[in-house]
Amino acid sequence: MSDAFTPNPVTPYLKPPRGSEATRPEPRSLFESSPPDLKVLAELSGQNVLYSRQFSFQQVAELCKLAAFLEQVEIWPYHPLDGKIVTTAFFEASTRTRTSFESAVHRLAGKIISIPDGSITGAKKGESLQDIGEMFNAYCDCVVMRHTETDAPKRILQNLRVPLINAGNGSGEHPTQALADWYALLKWKPRLAAPFETGDRRLQMGILGTPGSMRAVKSFLLMSLLFADHIEKVTVISEMADPFGKDVTESLNRADIEYEVTNDIRESLPKLDVIYMNSIAFLGDSYKALDARYKLDAESPLKKDAVILHPLARLDELDTSLDKTPHNLYFSQAHGAVFVRQALLLAVLGRLDRLPEFS
Amino acid sequence: MSDAFTPNPVTPYLKPPRGSEATRPEPRSLFESSPPDLKVLAELSGQNVLYSRQFSFQQVAELCKLAAFLEQVEIWPYHPLDGKIVTTAFFEASTRTRTSFESAVHRLAGKIISIPDGSITGAKKGESLQDIGEMFNAYCDCVVMRHTETDAPKRILQNLRVPLINAGNGSGEHPTQALADWYALLKWKPRLAAPFETGDRRLQMGILGTPGSMRAVKSFLLMSLLFADHIEKVTVISEMADPFGKDVTESLNRADIEYEVTNDIRESLPKLDVIYMNSIAFLGDSYKALDARYKLDAESPLKKDAVILHPLARLDELDTSLDKTPHNLYFSQAHGAVFVRQALLLAVLGRLDRLPEFS
Amino acid sequence: MSDAFTPNPVTPYLKPPRGSEATRPEPRSLFESSPPDLKVLAELSGQNVLYSRQFSFQQVAELCKLAAFLEQVEIWPYHPLDGKIVTTAFFEASTRTRTSFESAVHRLAGKIISIPDGSITGAKKGESLQDIGEMFNAYCDCVVMRHTETDAPKRILQNLRVPLINAGNGSGEHPTQALADWYALLKWKPRLAAPFETGDRRLQMGILGTPGSMRAVKSFLLMSLLFADHIEKVTVISEMADPFGKDVTESLNRADIEYEVTNDIRESLPKLDVIYMNSIAFLGDSYKALDARYKLDAESPLKKDAVILHPLARLDELDTSLDKTPHNLYFSQAHGAVFVRQALLLAVLGRLDRLPEFS
Repeated sequence: MSDAFTPNPVTPYLKPPRGSEATRPEPRSLFESSPPDLKVLAELSGQNVLYSRQFSFQQVAELCKLAAFLEQVEIWPYHPLDGKIVTTAFFEASTRTRTSFESAVHRLAGKIISIPDGSITGAKKGESLQDIGEMFNAYCDCVVMRHTETDAPKRILQNLRVPLINAGNGSGEHPTQALADWYALLKWKPRLAAPFETGDRRLQMGILGTPGSMRAVKSFLLMSLLFADHIEKVTVISEMADPFGKDVTESLNRADIEYEVTNDIRESLPKLDVIYMNSIAFLGDSYKALDARYKLDAESPLKKDAVILHPLARLDELDTSLDKTPHNLYFSQAHGAVFVRQALLLAVLGRLDRLPEFS
Repeated sequence: MSDAFTPNPVTPYLKPPRGSEATRPEPRSLFESSPPDLKVLAELSGQNVLYSRQFSFQQVAELCKLAAFLEQVEIWPYHPLDGKIVTTAFFEASTRTRTSFESAVHRLAGKIISIPDGSITGAKKGESLQDIGEMFNAYCDCVVMRHTETDAPKRILQNLRVPLINAGNGSGEHPTQALADWYALLKWKPRLAAPFETGDRRLQMGILGTPGSMRAVKSFLLMSLLFADHIEKVTVISEMADPFGKDVTESLNRADIEYEVTNDIRESLPKLDVIYMNSIAFLGDSYKALDARYKLDAESPLKKDAVILHPLARLDELDTSLDKTPHNLYFSQAHGAVFVRQALLLAVLGRLDRLPEFS
Repeated sequence: MSDAFTPNPVTPYLKPPRGSEATRPEPRSLFESSPPDLKVLAELSGQNVLYSRQFSFQQVAELCKLAAFLEQVEIWPYHPLDGKIVTTAFFEASTRTRTSFESAVHRLAGKIISIPDGSITGAKKGESLQDIGEMFNAYCDCVVMRHTETDAPKRILQNLRVPLINAGNGSGEHPTQALADWYALLKWKPRLAAPFETGDRRLQMGILGTPGSMRAVKSFLLMSLLFADHIEKVTVISEMADPFGKDVTESLNRADIEYEVTNDIRESLPKLDVIYMNSIAFLGDSYKALDARYKLDAESPLKKDAVILHPLARLDELDTSLDKTPHNLYFSQAHGAVFVRQALLLAVLGRLDRLPEFS
């Protein structure tokens, strides 16, 4: 990395504190594996970001490399999102996702219109999402939306003509969370960002959760299919007979990836390299814990170098006794969400040309 | 318009999509009819904006011409509201109006303090609006307030000394909505911005709603009185015996304008050039639909060139089948609200001198 | 003050309106008593601001002198908080405190992420403050937090590594309110910012409220102990047997300050120079008025030059008939909170070097 760049002032705060062995992979390795290809990212200009399957392997890899650059340097002085307004329309409230997008926009010197809760909006008057979409065409350059209803993106896109970034739609998808998940994994093992090479060891991946009904889990699993060559097997640990649903099952089969469903966590856990966990789902109008029997803590029979991902918020299914162990990749995952969302916003809003030269 | 200006980047998103014949009048004609007279607009510096009747015909015309300029060009690089803070104090929540003001401030490079809902404020502690007004004197340069109580502006103005812009006060007024309404009409027929000339055809104007109890309708009707010379007659279609109330009736009589009240929508509709519709009113603490029998859809017996205005949000009284027809002026009306609010903020905050030369 | 500075544009709005004799001390005297000592303020860089007792007399005096500078000049053009993000995390909602911090950040050209209410956050999902703290490490440079629970700062600080400013924690403290209180007093009597000199007249200070259970009162009283040399006696007027609680009692005793508790307001009031009043406390999950028998109005037997402080919001315990009298120092106190919070943010965020030369 060129000495011309000021280091990102956030960096010291992301280092695990003294006494913690949490895994914090440096972004440097991913960035230097090969610099971001802006031609690939330019394909995203003006695009909606609705679900994992719209991305190619290369787009995900380049977004993550750009995120690695943005995590290392102080980008704000370049004001790349100058004059751009992003609306964070959170008809379903959230602290984590909304504030992470707002942080991403601020660090890029963009501007924010914030709708933090659906109950305090015209939606209370019964206004349609279609009409809200037409309105947003004049108000902002991009809408980041979270909604309790799965068809909300479809409805707002009937009239919305500026890019929409889906921050979670009912039991649909949460594609930017999947990007954050894979950004953490690509920093952890930069070789995953390149095609599989004979001799690489494939990953045993586990999922504690229900892809069919939990949007973050679904998006993660579907994005993981882009990396199928690097994956030995996906083991879904669930008590449900069909944790996938028809749509995900079809994608799994098309991807030619080996997978299994088991309810035996003790038998499966010791084999896994990556465990993705999420037990909280927003169903209907409240939060429910599924598969609550499956908890992880420092006593769980984890492989020595296994890492855990969790989109957070968590209740007690992911015990805090794991926070200081090297299994903790989930804090890095949470931190990194800001940078990969910055990369995505720059690409979607067509502002890659405002970036400085990388070298 | 001088080539020195960058076109407003929002413009492509405001064009009706392919297949739609919605009426989108270009701002160019209004702006070029005669450029904005900044001396007239300077009269508004430091003024509160509380109700329609405070404006002169000329102030409305010049505000709309300035809005037409702001709609065409990218104004952000001039940072006209540099260093200015606007508080959007929405004790009565709103998506549309609050976000439209916030977009207006952002595009002018001003700053925003956002109070999106009255239930999450000190008001819950029973704090008086008078005390809130005294507080705002130190916090910001301008307050945009919406409140469920009609006397809220009067109460906050006991101590507030920075300009107040009324974004809706109970069953009082909504003057900036009326400005948005007339901005749409003046773009549609720029001759309305000049004195009536013999040979012009006067407009048949219709109102579906209750001016006496719906603040947006009231403000629109009262602002229309400034254009009385251009209006043949105002027909209010309502089931109520007295849809005006004493105050509006007096203004109507003083304005020497012909008006009538009828409940026969089928007989009146085919004669009207402009139909202003609003059937949702905030009464007490909830939304009520009045005159719900009167609905418009693509089958309604509308004059060929008739245009419809509606402040939105709408329920089902204005059918979406009209959206793609030339009768749809309400989408342009919604878009234009941002630009006329920009013009108003520049005038009230005394920043007209930051504008570039128009030619 | 050098002529190089533009006067703060807010100044005219802070002057009491015609007909009001409210006390508005000019910041000039405090600033010119001796200019702010930035070396002392540099001690605060990167520090959490949790309670009154963490400050030294000198730090409070210098913060208030810097506030006096910021109140007089227009600081925004120097952009001292360029690129810095402050999160206002108000899990307990507030209009006054949140908007005053946001105004402070805006005037310094910083950026804001706003969480205006705890009910619209991941906290609803049961997410822990510890996890929220870890998240904030990547999102912002500083967190200003208000919470209903007294141990909330302790919990978030388990993982939060950027500075935390406590804006009120249950029945704990409200240190920045105490700074605002003392800023008002130091402008009123600049000699209080210097060591006591023989011949100065000591103050008779009164408190109408319950320091043990009202955080603003507690913080004010504890910060007042730094000025013990200037105080003749503290009289707490309360109906409670022990209005202090063990912790405050110990601090009072250590400070070697004379104090008494009485329930006789009529006997005590005429002797007091400063009356600090607060009768609203947030207890549990609602607001309660304590000691509601004790009200002040224009007929109260106040000493001629006595001044009243009240953190506001108020109900009817502090009558509006006092607003136009010289006893009213509470409006100045409310205004000044913005400037002393600006001073604090500059110090905590290590941006004192962005200030212009004072002379």
